[in-house]
Amino acid sequence: MKIALDAMGGDFGSDPLVAGADLARRDFGTEVVLVGDPAVIRERLRALSLPPTTFEIVEAKDVIDMTDKASDVRKRRDSTVWVSAELVKKGHVQGAVSAGHSGASLAAAMWVLGRISGVERPTIGTILPCRPSRKHASHPTPPSPETVPDSGHFILVDGGANVDCKPSHLVSFARMGRLLSRHLFSVDQPRVSLLSNGEEETKGNELVARTIDLLRGRGEGSEKGEAYPWFTGPIESRDIFSGETDVVVCDGFVGNIVLKEAEGLAQTIMEMMKDAARSDLRSKIGGLLLRPALSRMKKRIDWAEYGGAPLLGVGGLFVICHGRSNALAIKNAIGMADRLASSGLTEALKAEMAPAASSEGGA
Amino acid sequence: MKIALDAMGGDFGSDPLVAGADLARRDFGTEVVLVGDPAVIRERLRALSLPPTTFEIVEAKDVIDMTDKASDVRKRRDSTVWVSAELVKKGHVQGAVSAGHSGASLAAAMWVLGRISGVERPTIGTILPCRPSRKHASHPTPPSPETVPDSGHFILVDGGANVDCKPSHLVSFARMGRLLSRHLFSVDQPRVSLLSNGEEETKGNELVARTIDLLRGRGEGSEKGEAYPWFTGPIESRDIFSGETDVVVCDGFVGNIVLKEAEGLAQTIMEMMKDAARSDLRSKIGGLLLRPALSRMKKRIDWAEYGGAPLLGVGGLFVICHGRSNALAIKNAIGMADRLASSGLTEALKAEMAPAASSEGGA
Repeated sequence: MKIALDAMGGDFGSDPLVAGADLARRDFGTEVVLVGDPAVIRERLRALSLPPTTFEIVEAKDVIDMTDKASDVRKRRDSTVWVSAELVKKGHVQGAVSAGHSGASLAAAMWVLGRISGVERPTIGTILPCRPSRKHASHPTPPSPETVPDSGHFILVDGGANVDCKPSHLVSFARMGRLLSRHLFSVDQPRVSLLSNGEEETKGNELVARTIDLLRGRGEGSEKGEAYPWFTGPIESRDIFSGETDVVVCDGFVGNIVLKEAEGLAQTIMEMMKDAARSDLRSKIGGLLLRPALSRMKKRIDWAEYGGAPLLGVGGLFVICHGRSNALAIKNAIGMADRLASSGLTEALKAEMAPAASSEGGA
Repeated sequence: MKIALDAMGGDFGSDPLVAGADLARRDFGTEVVLVGDPAVIRERLRALSLPPTTFEIVEAKDVIDMTDKASDVRKRRDSTVWVSAELVKKGHVQGAVSAGHSGASLAAAMWVLGRISGVERPTIGTILPCRPSRKHASHPTPPSPETVPDSGHFILVDGGANVDCKPSHLVSFARMGRLLSRHLFSVDQPRVSLLSNGEEETKGNELVARTIDLLRGRGEGSEKGEAYPWFTGPIESRDIFSGETDVVVCDGFVGNIVLKEAEGLAQTIMEMMKDAARSDLRSKIGGLLLRPALSRMKKRIDWAEYGGAPLLGVGGLFVICHGRSNALAIKNAIGMADRLASSGLTEALKAEMAPAASSEGGA
């Protein structure tokens, strides 16, 4: 597969971007097209002792900054995100990756690639680590171990794109997140849950209560639709990391809170542990002995290991990355784009969301 | 101080409740009044080798169950929570503590004690651990170390009582949470933050954006009020555990998500660490050496150490506890009730929220 990489966006400039592209080329055999200022990119290639012809380079000299407004991208069609999206549109590449301004990436992808028919609000599917699943207590018909592999990850959707949502938006996030889970982790029958303040369907705020009605086929009037048998019900935030579900659905405001809390809390606990391991000699020796095992664990929960988050509901594949992505994260985001392009995620989303066609999800 | 304890509510029956009352009596000198079935309570006292006259016992034979509806409490005036609230109302005790059905406690407190004038929605102030504060970067005028002691805790308000909120509700949660922080941690000038999806005041969902307007004195029409100089601005969930703020304000749906995510994630990380410390001989020895330091750390972040969460906005002191509270948590919740009764929290809230009086917060 051929994947475009915004080679200028991100907090650390081109260094980790070009290095990540080289890792993806070598480890996954992905053909990466670098989008940016050719002079800057060639300088990076020299620094990495790579021939200037290692990658196809497409010129785009403007970069949307973190201080810019997302909507500015419309007027800046020489920007790296806009040009990257255009390469997808033209079919020159099968997907694009950017670690730049997330809002600008979403805006560029929506303007250039358009929305998939039947999708009101494109969204972001964010991948999070969890304990490998062991129990399926809340699932009506426990799937066999063969159909639900222990991916050790789940998808949070909306991962921050839409802060104010309607129930119908959440239903479409659920349908698209389910497909992403299938394509990314080869989960045959993903379990899809709605984040709530209790496991009972009688709990939830107004948005959640009305979304449950829709997912159960109890909506009123024009909102009345089919029941989705794959909907496993509400889930509490305490259970999302324990491997009980594959997809967690919420609005983008709550999604942002959940993501950043996990990031902040994991860091705080790690720092408190480091403090604990420095408190006396006994603890210092213990900490040193434990270090390799903890590094393995940290590697598993490090977001650089899964790299990026695909936009869902736009007319082509676009993966956004954390601004602070290192070369490993960029490599893995390119690998994710390659895999999702090969598996035909965008086409599957178009088929699922098409208003006229009967939903795959209801089958 | 004299504090009533619901001696029947909670997941583990009377055992930890009566044991916790005895600890509070011995460690804090609190006069605890046990509310429940006298026969059951006397049986527990016997098991603890305590004389039957150790505590005043007030009879209440009905217990609101976790499966009951919160509103059922109105019809069950012989229930332990109702009778506990009535003891506060009559002035027989200065506060009450219950580990039973939280919703029923809130309902009983509202019905029996009434709402404080000027409070539309009573709420729950939940105490969470954080790193001791070191930086105050986001605070306009950095408070001196004397005025902001390193309590190592912050208050989350609403901790789960009101799932759908209006901007004016969040403003009152901020005002009441600020007073709780003062009374509980002796913080002279608590920093009060609004949970949002970004540090910038231009971010946030509609509820947050409108709440910021009110707190900044930019509300429209009848909503236009005074600016609150103690409002330090929006905070991201990644920063709430790092000691940057004293009070985090959000609606009860988001508050529930934040609380339970912290609980679930801390447990998942601890379990993953245990797995890591079992992975090979080197790690096993390291884990054993580190155990005492980790136990000290765990103790600091254990919710049993702060015990309970006070209801804010009802006409008397009522502290609710986790259903799974052990004797230590009950002891500390009673201690909290004793401290808050002594410091006059309810009277301070009445003065702050009184519609006619000029607000203390705006001064």
